[in-house]
Amino acid sequence: MVDNTKTVRFGILGCANIARKVARAIALAPNATLCAVASRSKEKAERFAAENGFPASVRVYGSYDQVLEDPGVDAVYVPLPTSLHVRWAVMAAGRKKHVLVEKPAALDAAELDRILAAVESNGVQFMDGSMWLHHPRTAHIQHLCCVPRSANFIGPIHFIHSTSTMAATPEFLASDIRVKPELDGLGALGDLAWYCIGASLWAKGYQLPITVTALPDFTRNSAGVILSITASLLWDQPNQTLATIHCSFLSHTSMDLAICGSDGSVHLRDFIIPYQETSASFDLTFGAKFVDLHIGWNVKPEEVHVVNELPQEALMVQEFSRLVAGIRDCGSQPSTKWPEISRKTQLVVDAVNKSLDLGCKPVSL
Amino acid sequence: MVDNTKTVRFGILGCANIARKVARAIALAPNATLCAVASRSKEKAERFAAENGFPASVRVYGSYDQVLEDPGVDAVYVPLPTSLHVRWAVMAAGRKKHVLVEKPAALDAAELDRILAAVESNGVQFMDGSMWLHHPRTAHIQHLCCVPRSANFIGPIHFIHSTSTMAATPEFLASDIRVKPELDGLGALGDLAWYCIGASLWAKGYQLPITVTALPDFTRNSAGVILSITASLLWDQPNQTLATIHCSFLSHTSMDLAICGSDGSVHLRDFIIPYQETSASFDLTFGAKFVDLHIGWNVKPEEVHVVNELPQEALMVQEFSRLVAGIRDCGSQPSTKWPEISRKTQLVVDAVNKSLDLGCKPVSL
Repeated sequence: MVDNTKTVRFGILGCANIARKVARAIALAPNATLCAVASRSKEKAERFAAENGFPASVRVYGSYDQVLEDPGVDAVYVPLPTSLHVRWAVMAAGRKKHVLVEKPAALDAAELDRILAAVESNGVQFMDGSMWLHHPRTAHIQHLCCVPRSANFIGPIHFIHSTSTMAATPEFLASDIRVKPELDGLGALGDLAWYCIGASLWAKGYQLPITVTALPDFTRNSAGVILSITASLLWDQPNQTLATIHCSFLSHTSMDLAICGSDGSVHLRDFIIPYQETSASFDLTFGAKFVDLHIGWNVKPEEVHVVNELPQEALMVQEFSRLVAGIRDCGSQPSTKWPEISRKTQLVVDAVNKSLDLGCKPVSL
Repeated sequence: MVDNTKTVRFGILGCANIARKVARAIALAPNATLCAVASRSKEKAERFAAENGFPASVRVYGSYDQVLEDPGVDAVYVPLPTSLHVRWAVMAAGRKKHVLVEKPAALDAAELDRILAAVESNGVQFMDGSMWLHHPRTAHIQHLCCVPRSANFIGPIHFIHSTSTMAATPEFLASDIRVKPELDGLGALGDLAWYCIGASLWAKGYQLPITVTALPDFTRNSAGVILSITASLLWDQPNQTLATIHCSFLSHTSMDLAICGSDGSVHLRDFIIPYQETSASFDLTFGAKFVDLHIGWNVKPEEVHVVNELPQEALMVQEFSRLVAGIRDCGSQPSTKWPEISRKTQLVVDAVNKSLDLGCKPVSL
């Protein structure tokens, strides 16, 4: 028997592929339950519910509005194309629904600010769907990067490098919403660079860079949507740090993250989606030097394993639901942490886009 | 008993730390023998010979000239500061000595061209001391990158990332020859970026990039010597490739190399100096996709091990000596492969330097 005073009741707006993953995450999270799903056609929503084995208690709607009108829905998950986020997130907040929105949060910071104004004025929680931030591995590494007194603190960070690439199929490149200017106009910058920018900001404790510069190897499709992008982010205080990011729909799958400090480094190759669900690892190299004659190293990277009881997307739903339940049941204020993370990420996305428009000139933040 | 008709007899000009490693490599290479060593003072050369256990047959000289005048020396190894390479390499070639010169080959392409003109007109072999190019792992990976018909060919390369960083001690930063403008004026650009530029060119089959751009996070010491540098290299034919390189005396030790093609990727974290001498490995990821629901990957990277009977620096000496013996004993022409690799690397080093001087503007090659 579900205790509805503790469980957060989700409605899903749309039947995108990613919604299958988040529906499962809602089922796995102990403090969340799926209670409604909508598509623009009821048939499609019914097929989606059947294919994913949703229980009969899940209400199936033929319009997104019906989810927002459902008094049994506490929160909505919005996996719609990015261009529709502002409309539906603002409407959901207006109906006092908490909003978990798929990344990228919006097409630009102006749109995101409309969403954040709506959630703030309605007292509801906002979070974007950056699942990797909720993996315990992420917290473990953050400790090594950001807590000077921790054992194996890697020291001030000098360099960060990350990639998010995938070899899209011809069908994807012809017709996926992520290559359509009217749907996900940011293309690879929104879908992939969101992660790399987010990881760079995260490693730097969410300090914004002073300049952002696109590199000249970008690719656009015939409609102008970005298919690949490389960029650099520069910080100068308290120490100089450069981050390079490389994102592409045109390359083999990669999710590299390397963080190099003065005393150690951390390397991952699956930072966005861990190789497997139940545990993840990262490589820590600390105090590396060359042996005499420089014919080898004194240490090899240590593979650090981190076990997780729930997959990262379920941990995301759990954290979001914890915040929602606090607001709903205990009168807590919405957490500003997650909206701020989304907004900083969006500001850097905007700056990369602007640098591209300026012919790869540096853009100050 | 050494067969002198097959063995190449080396003299070493100078007692730099790296000369200890190469003296050992000469001893390990089956077709090379050390027969002379010189310093600017005979006492220092004698101490160096004693400390390194050189046999009594090794002639010890108090000036570099004496090595060049020694008729029993076929080839010289030049570990002197970069600013002295042109003088001593040209003089050595003029005495018909084959020239193995430590990297960076020269301060700029104009100086290197003087060396290469001298070795060409005197019919002697030239090679720079990029040891990693001689490791069998390097050939193994090159096969995956450059031979379209090979199994696990990673496809056209889209992105290359490499680093060469080390946390220099305060003593190094105060007094090492690599931070002195009058000795190794290229600093980290010569000492470290030589490797990353070389690796990028190597992965691209030694095609030169069309543009080279320094990124804005460079650091110089008070004398103007580069302590850290990040740069990008762009190719546009036959497919677009971007390489990023990051090199620093101010960071934790790293030697990352990642090569990402359309169908696979290769990752190393010790590409310049393998963790250990007798074998090395790299990670190959091929055909990676996400499993259903994107909750994991279909494959994990495969760790490929490559055994080497001799350390890479001995393989370098062996290859150089093979070429020298061919010239000396069989009338072969000097190989143009190694001088061309050095020259292309030097051209890109020059371009990075020029980009820095232009305020990080792109420089065309």
